[in-house]
Amino acid sequence: MNVIKVSANSRTAAVAGAIAGVMREHRYAEVQSIGAGAVNQAVKAIILAKGYLVNDGIDIICVPNLLMLRLTAKFGPLSN
Amino acid sequence: MNVIKVSANSRTAAVAGAIAGVMREHRYAEVQSIGAGAVNQAVKAIILAKGYLVNDGIDIICVPNLLMLRLTAKFGPLSN
Repeated sequence: MNVIKVSANSRTAAVAGAIAGVMREHRYAEVQSIGAGAVNQAVKAIILAKGYLVNDGIDIICVPNLLMLRLTAKFGPLSN
Repeated sequence: MNVIKVSANSRTAAVAGAIAGVMREHRYAEVQSIGAGAVNQAVKAIILAKGYLVNDGIDIICVPNLLMLRLTAKFGPLSN
């Protein structure tokens, strides 16, 4: 299942639509965001998605968690 | 039950302690925040509080929601 990645510039309605779609299919969705602006958009999108799913009889609860990113550096020309 | 109000400058550990305390007593806590920075601190505090409560056998799930603020203006001298 694809993780829904949210940035500070993501439109909440679009993210909420994605969350609702994944929730309908899997009854579970994973949302990732980095930074305060992105976390804020994600929370607002979850609230919106909750509304989208009311008629499907699906209620959203969320379990926030921290994500450890493993950053790797590659040295070489930019085209790599 | 008191609502836990979180600002962008709130210390996550302090907020998490407050959430954990209220959760232990009521099995329910209400957290309010306004603005991206504050929402971010609140989400981080919930994640921390989840850790604080593991040994109590309490698991946190959260249900984000929008809050309608009713702003009222009073006209008169500042001392009022």
